[in-house]
Amino acid sequence: MNPIQRVAIVGGTHGNEFTGAYLVKKFEQHPNLIQRSSFETLTVFGNPQAFAAATRYIDEDLNRCFLMQDLQNADLSSYEAQRAKAIAQLLGPKGNAQVDVLVDLHSTTANMGLSLLLSARNSASLQLASHLSTINPLVKVCWTHPHPESMLLRSLCEVGIVIEVGPVAQGVLDAQWFQKTEELVHAILDYLEACNRGMTPLMQSPLTLYEFIGTIDYPRNSLGEIQAMVHPLLQGKDYEPLHPGDPVFLTLEGETIPYQGDNTVYPAFINEAAYYEKGIAMCLTQKQLITLENL
Amino acid sequence: MNPIQRVAIVGGTHGNEFTGAYLVKKFEQHPNLIQRSSFETLTVFGNPQAFAAATRYIDEDLNRCFLMQDLQNADLSSYEAQRAKAIAQLLGPKGNAQVDVLVDLHSTTANMGLSLLLSARNSASLQLASHLSTINPLVKVCWTHPHPESMLLRSLCEVGIVIEVGPVAQGVLDAQWFQKTEELVHAILDYLEACNRGMTPLMQSPLTLYEFIGTIDYPRNSLGEIQAMVHPLLQGKDYEPLHPGDPVFLTLEGETIPYQGDNTVYPAFINEAAYYEKGIAMCLTQKQLITLENL
Repeated sequence: MNPIQRVAIVGGTHGNEFTGAYLVKKFEQHPNLIQRSSFETLTVFGNPQAFAAATRYIDEDLNRCFLMQDLQNADLSSYEAQRAKAIAQLLGPKGNAQVDVLVDLHSTTANMGLSLLLSARNSASLQLASHLSTINPLVKVCWTHPHPESMLLRSLCEVGIVIEVGPVAQGVLDAQWFQKTEELVHAILDYLEACNRGMTPLMQSPLTLYEFIGTIDYPRNSLGEIQAMVHPLLQGKDYEPLHPGDPVFLTLEGETIPYQGDNTVYPAFINEAAYYEKGIAMCLTQKQLITLENL
Repeated sequence: MNPIQRVAIVGGTHGNEFTGAYLVKKFEQHPNLIQRSSFETLTVFGNPQAFAAATRYIDEDLNRCFLMQDLQNADLSSYEAQRAKAIAQLLGPKGNAQVDVLVDLHSTTANMGLSLLLSARNSASLQLASHLSTINPLVKVCWTHPHPESMLLRSLCEVGIVIEVGPVAQGVLDAQWFQKTEELVHAILDYLEACNRGMTPLMQSPLTLYEFIGTIDYPRNSLGEIQAMVHPLLQGKDYEPLHPGDPVFLTLEGETIPYQGDNTVYPAFINEAAYYEKGIAMCLTQKQLITLENL
């Protein structure tokens, strides 16, 4: 990894995800906590108006406003489009960011523990993720195929990482997740400091990586109304294997719907509140073991 | 209890409390499930627009719109004021309701299990609550001092009961809570049917009643910003004793704030998402044992 000069910690990208929002507020008030001697750490509060209203967003999802062409489109004037441009000006531009590492703090109603979502499968991101999952076995590492254009805030930066913690209800500040997220942020900063000093910790390979391969929506009727719930046997079972034929939904009338895929998958974001409107009941991942020597 | 002629089941009073909303949708589609031979059962979907937007309310909290004077005030025209008037026309008027029993289905982010909130401490409500807590020990029974004027939907009816289940995140349909709530609704209907047939079950007294005596807000600064979280040792401990000096909050900086009251209390609605804006971190209750013979 090249020397790290600037790191950004973003919270409150979604206004009702209080863990990251209050953590950034704490860091703003006590900047010494996130300073390290070899690099500068910035904080960004993503969506102040949505936070004030305790809602995910005002006009549209801020974390879907970072398409390059949208950032360059002066006609887009929603509150979140404006916030995205302001944040891109502060941290970007895409492909040539002013920060070397970007950590975006989120929470989820799904039972995802301490999840890291990586934008890119580059060596720097994977080394960091491997380190964090080695020192804390509760850390899970997810990765999405890189789109040529990503809408996500974390795509501003080559080493863009989301910390996704849960289960936490929207609009709730949970002390335990607040503390665990803070510990993880400190572990990231300490790791980057060690890298800068040439003391990169030796990694225990292999790294377990959950690669996003698709999504499943709730069964709906022709009006789009939900007809079935996540099955009680699947609820809360993020990152556990879902085999063909396993229960995946339960209709309101009590009928079990089995998983119809051909292969075992590992669901994540199971029953995430914010994804109902996106037509996503869960994301599916493939579990991979990656040998870091091969990076 | 006088013969029951009509029972109302209300769901979706808060648009992001999906358990009751989807249960009423199910009952609307399968009305036979809630019919009993000796009385009529109606369903009411409280706040359709808020449900469509997956938010608690559009303009204001519908469950605070049932003051008699507000129901009679033609100048109040918010969406929820209009819904309250429509619901009062269907089920009310207050003091002379068209239904004998009203069950309003809610959910909470607090760990309140299967809670019954009673409007009035009348014999009919207590007998019903006692029966339900006898057949299901997970049922807790709460009671608020009767205000001469209540703002709550359940105050439309003398035997007005809220079922409050949780923890469930806002905007999430959780199959287990859906099923448990449905079972409880059936237990209520079956009990009322038995009463009408003169076969009222014998009650095991005493009944444990949690009487609301006040609320505590989060510690805030002069701008109203939250400075402390519910303490991890108290999170999820609804209905458990909180003694003077016990940890109640944890500041963002990690300092424990003890409970300053003089007496042991039993908190409920601990860290309920919807109560942040109401200035309520938790409700306090006193635990009472009531001998039903004395009713």
